[in-house]
Order: sequence, then structure tokens, then C-alpha cells
Amino acid sequence: MRHLLSTKDLSRDEAVAILDIAEDMADVANREVKKLPTLRGKTVVNLFFEDSTRTRVSFEVAAKRLSADVINFSAKGSSVSKGESLKDTAQTLAAMGADAVVIRHGASGAPRVLADSGWIDAGIVNAGDGTHEHPTQALLDAFTIRKRLHGSASRGRALDGVTVAIVGDILHSRVARSNLWLLSTLGASVQLVGPATLLPVSTEGWPATVTLDLDAAVDAGPDVVMMLRIQAERMTAAFFPNAREYSRQWGLDDERVARLPAASMVMHPGPMNRGLEISSGAADSERSTVLEQVANGVSIRMAVLYHLLSGTGEARA
Amino acid sequence: MRHLLSTKDLSRDEAVAILDIAEDMADVANREVKKLPTLRGKTVVNLFFEDSTRTRVSFEVAAKRLSADVINFSAKGSSVSKGESLKDTAQTLAAMGADAVVIRHGASGAPRVLADSGWIDAGIVNAGDGTHEHPTQALLDAFTIRKRLHGSASRGRALDGVTVAIVGDILHSRVARSNLWLLSTLGASVQLVGPATLLPVSTEGWPATVTLDLDAAVDAGPDVVMMLRIQAERMTAAFFPNAREYSRQWGLDDERVARLPAASMVMHPGPMNRGLEISSGAADSERSTVLEQVANGVSIRMAVLYHLLSGTGEARA
Amino acid sequence: MRHLLSTKDLSRDEAVAILDIAEDMADVANREVKKLPTLRGKTVVNLFFEDSTRTRVSFEVAAKRLSADVINFSAKGSSVSKGESLKDTAQTLAAMGADAVVIRHGASGAPRVLADSGWIDAGIVNAGDGTHEHPTQALLDAFTIRKRLHGSASRGRALDGVTVAIVGDILHSRVARSNLWLLSTLGASVQLVGPATLLPVSTEGWPATVTLDLDAAVDAGPDVVMMLRIQAERMTAAFFPNAREYSRQWGLDDERVARLPAASMVMHPGPMNRGLEISSGAADSERSTVLEQVANGVSIRMAVLYHLLSGTGEARA
Repeated sequence: MRHLLSTKDLSRDEAVAILDIAEDMADVANREVKKLPTLRGKTVVNLFFEDSTRTRVSFEVAAKRLSADVINFSAKGSSVSKGESLKDTAQTLAAMGADAVVIRHGASGAPRVLADSGWIDAGIVNAGDGTHEHPTQALLDAFTIRKRLHGSASRGRALDGVTVAIVGDILHSRVARSNLWLLSTLGASVQLVGPATLLPVSTEGWPATVTLDLDAAVDAGPDVVMMLRIQAERMTAAFFPNAREYSRQWGLDDERVARLPAASMVMHPGPMNRGLEISSGAADSERSTVLEQVANGVSIRMAVLYHLLSGTGEARA
Repeated sequence: MRHLLSTKDLSRDEAVAILDIAEDMADVANREVKKLPTLRGKTVVNLFFEDSTRTRVSFEVAAKRLSADVINFSAKGSSVSKGESLKDTAQTLAAMGADAVVIRHGASGAPRVLADSGWIDAGIVNAGDGTHEHPTQALLDAFTIRKRLHGSASRGRALDGVTVAIVGDILHSRVARSNLWLLSTLGASVQLVGPATLLPVSTEGWPATVTLDLDAAVDAGPDVVMMLRIQAERMTAAFFPNAREYSRQWGLDDERVARLPAASMVMHPGPMNRGLEISSGAADSERSTVLEQVANGVSIRMAVLYHLLSGTGEARA
Repeated sequence: MRHLLSTKDLSRDEAVAILDIAEDMADVANREVKKLPTLRGKTVVNLFFEDSTRTRVSFEVAAKRLSADVINFSAKGSSVSKGESLKDTAQTLAAMGADAVVIRHGASGAPRVLADSGWIDAGIVNAGDGTHEHPTQALLDAFTIRKRLHGSASRGRALDGVTVAIVGDILHSRVARSNLWLLSTLGASVQLVGPATLLPVSTEGWPATVTLDLDAAVDAGPDVVMMLRIQAERMTAAFFPNAREYSRQWGLDDERVARLPAASMVMHPGPMNRGLEISSGAADSERSTVLEQVANGVSIRMAVLYHLLSGTGEARA
């Protein structure tokens, strides 16, 4: 594996292998000195065409823990834009010796363009592209589910038989797409839940069932309820009466959480709109994995960078 | 000591201990290789809700000299705001494995909220909160005074009997507050000087005398005159006729400097408004400690990070 | 050599020495671990009063490959401005222990002011000042030409007899000025080409010929055609009819490139305005050295930082 562009491409074995490396990385985090010398002398560039402090910091922490040098390259506000400029930016980073480029871009497919272009020899990691994919988010979500279910006996396992409801703005969510592909590859069953205006017109070919009814989804007792962040600007675009109405119909409130089986997990990629798509009670409950997701995000990103840059990646490619 | 939130909390022994560690750190700065491996593998996050290039850079230099990894997290312009968001930000940083969080925030008390919340296990360093405190500034000021007075014989000493006039916008100054508490804890006598509109309505409980008359304060021959930065927007808010009038009554000009005893120090936390609260003659005179303060700032911040993160902090807590 | 402020000051021997060190640095880049411990414990500050992601990143990569600590200090938007403030900023960086300051500033001469002021003891590297100079760009250009001409037999050589046409907005270009001085010091012949409104009123004392006629310059068969970036705002200021007209008369299009000798190089400092001063065909042709220039930029900046900070610089001073 030379790049991580989407979870749709990942085989079950590849996905489990990354989760297993992340287990090793999580163990490192528990040591007194958390730093590994593995990527010393390697340069990781965070190339962010959209702001995302959380994701950028998570990758930066991960890379530094592997002793890589990190260069933050915020393309926003610079003269960089799309098309040929992406080419020139990529070639420039290649010429400067970037070993990995972590890219977030507003255009779906931009990371694949980089990877397929021949403009740059570095490993490309998709950190979110348009409404397409956000593969490290899905990997950290899968890792979090596996860890909750199997604890220290997680290594080597997939998610066969696990039921997951993904709730909210499916239409625009790269988190939903990446999870859809990865979770089903790992053997889980996925149900998509949201208002009709925020669901794709067609989900043909998607390994998922679809419902408009969150209450029904909750009462089915899924192992995981994964809430998506709702963005204020979508609210208007989707002709929604208002946030309260959204919250009433598709928010995970205390009452709905109470109806879930005791072992069900409540997930959210953050940052949360407390009181909108998720209540504070739900976010802070024992069921919530929100902070485990953040912690596991560092382990997963360490695993991905290690996998792509340590030579292991080459060997597997 | 697990956190550094204010100087009001510091005991005399704790304060002297930090100053003494800073002496060791200042010695390191004179070596050919200034870097210590002490905090290798530790992650220090600069969480700045307000811009302050100087303070951020000083902490960044300090942390890197101790071999810590530094993550700059500028909350300005991001979706982060106060209240629950501070909670989510803190928990996120905790989950990512931050060992120390250096926080600057516009709201007085925000660092204490972080420290008391249980949201995050990291050491919290207050780098300026609203009009409340800026404890590392006061520590570097105390260190600078002690060093000028006692040179290489400083270790173990406090500031008993030292007289300090703090001049300017006392009302809004966290530098004034932090110095007030620390200097008096260390045995110094503090006089606050400024226009009536820029003094607190009441200074009851403050270990300081107050005067409106800078000339009287100067003629009393204090060991230290500490000028505060005046901010243009306060000028209007305080119903001041204009900057020239402010400068005439509460600026440290060449003439006033000349009336000070030869050994008096002139201090300023920077950045200076030359010609407003301080003349260039005063800023660049032999009496001025402005650049020593900057250099000592790095030593103090190294000492604080070392104290909180090296285990010494735990032992003392 | 304590500073690198301009190429006009550089002797032929000094220039060749820097190019030779850069050859060593380029060799390092081909190793498995690219990092050298040479500048461990040294602090390099990128002090940028103007945005330039490319140049900043190039210096940051170079410094990190030498194991220096890098502090990015963007003065834009902060309270820093010119005059006394430059003094205060410089003294602050000095007090914090900066070993080198890489400065980009809108005012011609600002780096020399820093170097001559006594405000700061650090090595000063000019990363572009107003319309004055951009010496590392010229060094990387000279390095690129030498490497293309002599390959692995480059060490010790200058550029005697090489013919270079520099094309575009000569009037405002620091790249043109730095190249003019360096290339002629190294023995090359320089011709300046551009519209009358974008040429200096007088080039007296400049070791170069001048022409308005790009076609004549191309047909003379120069070894190097160096295109300058044209900035949109100059277009208006120069009373140009429009970009298309500029491109027709002074752009390097496919037809002009085809008329050049097979061995001629096409250079551009980047970022390119494809279709304006240079066609995509020209930019991506075998003749183009654009990406070699970027790669060599890191080697040259490593060489300069090494030269100034490793003690070699002191010895030569």
C-alpha cells in the first residue's frame, strides 16, 4: 500500500492489518517516553486546503511521535487553487523531498489526482476530500468499535455481525461514506438514517439499508449509533424548518439513548454541536466513545504513516 | 505543583524554587548546545485564544530547548469558543496525549476552569487570562530583579525590602496583578501608579499602596519602575484627552528617568509603545531590563515546564 | 561570512564555496536518512513580514534537515511594523536566543539594517527584501545551471561564458537583481529583456545588456532563458493593454521554446503563471529546470545555514 485514498479500496486483510498496527501504536502511547525513532529523517507535509485544526493536530502529533519532521502548509489564503496549481504545489513538495503528504481538499478526488498523477512520489494520505472520503476517520471508528467489543483480544479481528446506524447528513458526509465502505468490508451491517433531503437520491450499490426513522433505528438496538455533525449551512440548503425540528427528529437525545441496549456505543467524529445532533447527556454518557475516538485517531494516523513510510508499505504494495 | 494558574497561589518557597530552576536553565543557554533531553517525548500544546506572537514564541523556544514536541493550536478563527467548547477542546487535547497546555484566553479564569474541570490531565500553564493573571511574566520579572540585584549569588534569595512602582493601566493589566501578588509574596513593597480612570475602584485586600502622582513615585526613588503597555483602545474608553496628555502625566520620559537613583531598574513587559508610556531614552538606557526580561522569559518558561512535567512537579504537589 | 544579505557582496570564491557545500547537501538528500545532526540545539527563526509559503517551507525543510529548531514568526497581522519596531522585534529574537534569522520584508534593505544594527547577534539571511535582492534564489539558480552543465563534475566550477537572458518585470524583481550580480560574478553574460515600462530607467553600472525584443534574445540562442513571475497588479501599474498582449510579446510560448538550442535551459523561480509569462509546454519541457530549482533550493538553504551557523562561517568572516 503506497497511499491511503479511500476505504472503498481497502481489502479486509489490509484494513485489519492497519488496525493491528494501531494497536501497537496505542501501546506505545502508554509508555513513559511515547516517541519512536521509526520515521526519523522523514518529512510529512500537512497540505490543508480547508481548515481543520483537529485533524491537522492529530496528524501532527502522530508524525512527531514517530520522530518525523512535520511541515504545515496551509494552502488557504495563499495563491494556491485547484487544477494546474495543485500540480505545481505537488511537484514543489516532491522536489523539496516530502515523504508523505496529508491532504485535505474541498474537491472530491483531489488526493487520488495527486496519487495517480506521477507529479509526486510521496505517500498520499486523504485527510478529507469534498463529500467523498475521510478514510482515517473510518479506520479510527472501526478501531474504536473493535476495541470496545474485544479489548486486549482485538488483534486480528474484524467486525463481523456488528450493527451500525449512521445518522444525519449522509448526503454531504465523507465520514459516512468512508465508514460505509470500511465497516461493511469488515463484516458489519450498516443502516443509514436521516431526513430525505440529506440522503442521496440513490444508494444503489451501497452496502447499507436506509431509513428516515431514527426511532425505529434506535429500537432495533444497534451495537453502534454513529452521529454525524450537522452543518448550519446545510440546514437552510435542505429547506429545514429549523434546528429544533432537526434535533427533535434526528438528534440523539437523552430519551433515545435510554432506549438503546446497555452495551450500545454512541459515536461522533467531532466537533459536536451539543443540543443539535447530540445531547450533552448522550455525548458524555458511558456509551459515548467520543474521546476514545480522538485518542485512537492518533494511533491510527501513526499506523497509517508507519505503514506507508517505514518500508512495510512498499513490501505489501 | 501540577499547574501554574496564578501567582496569588504561590508560596514563597515555591516561587523561589522556580526562580532557582530558572537559574539552572539560564546556565544551559550559555552552553554551545543549548538543548536538554529532559522532556523528550512530551507534547506541549500552545492553545492561544488570543494572538500573542511574543509569548507563544517564548514558550515554543522554551519547550523545544527541553526537547518537547510543540503543537501550536490557534483557536482564533476556528469554531472554538467559550463554555462547552472549551470543554470539548480540552478533552480533545487530553485524548491526543497533551502533557502540558499553555493557554491564553480572553476570559479571566479560563485556565483554572481547565485545571479544575477534570477534563484534562495535562499540566496547565496560564499564559494570560483576561484581566486576571499572567504568572510567567511576573516570575520572569522577579527573576530579572533578583538577578540584577544579586547576580550569580541569586539562588535561594527572595526580594525582601525591594521597592517597586507599577505604572499605567492597572485596571486592565494581568501583568500588574500577577506582579502584585508575586512581588509581595517575595517580600517586596509595591506601589501602583496611574490615572484614576485606569485604577480599580477598590484595591482593598491588595498588598500595595496607590497614587495618581508618577512624579512623587519617581522621587521616592524606587528600586524598580515597571511600566505597563497602554493599549490605544483604553485611551478612548478611559476618556483621556489624548496620548500626549497621557504621556506627559504617566509616561516614563527621559527627564523622569534622570531623577531616579542610578541603580533603579526600568522594566517593561513589551511590546513597548515608545514615546507613549516609555521614551526611547528610558527603554534603551542602562537602567532598562527590557531585553533581560525577554531572555529570562525563556529560562522561566523552561523552568515552569520542567517543574510541571519532569516529575519534580508531581513530587512537590 | 556572518550573514547572507545580497549576492552583490559575494566574491567569486565565496559563491563557489557555497555552491560546493550545497553539492554535499544534495548528496545527503539521496541517503536513506536525510537528516544531519550539524545544527542540533540551534534555533532558526523564519521572520516573514510578507507571505511566502514556498520560501518559508524551503527554509524550514532545510533547517530541520540539519536538526535545527525552527520557529515560524509571521509578522503580518501582528503589531510589528517598520522602523523602531523592527529594532524591538530583532532585539526580542536575539534575547530569546535565535542563532539565525531568515527575514523576508517588503522594504528594500531591511535585512542589512538588521545585520548592521548591532540589535542582534544572529546570522541574518535575506529571503527577499522589497525590490532589492533574494540571494538564495540566485544561488539556487546558479547551482541549477552549473549542475545541468557539469553534472557530478560541478564542484569548484563557476559559470564562465554561460549566456543568460532574464525576461520580464526587471524593474520590480529582486530575483533579477540577485541573479544579475551573482551570475556575472561567476563569469556569465546576462541580458535583460522586458517591456520598457518594466525596465529600470537606467541600468548604468549593471553588468548586463538590455533589450525589448524577446524574439531577438531567443534567436541569439542563450544557454539559459530565465522567466520572471509577472504580478497582476504590475500589469495595470505598467499601463499594459492586457495579459494577452504581455504574453504575446514577452511570454515564453511553445513556438519560442522550439527555436531555442536543444541544450538551452528554461528557468522560473515559481510560482508560475502558466499561460501568462510561460506556457505549460515550456514549463513542462525537458529544457525546464523548474523542479530542479525547487529541489536545489533546499540544498542551497542547507548550505547557507550550515555556512553561517556551523562555525565555518565564523572562520571565514
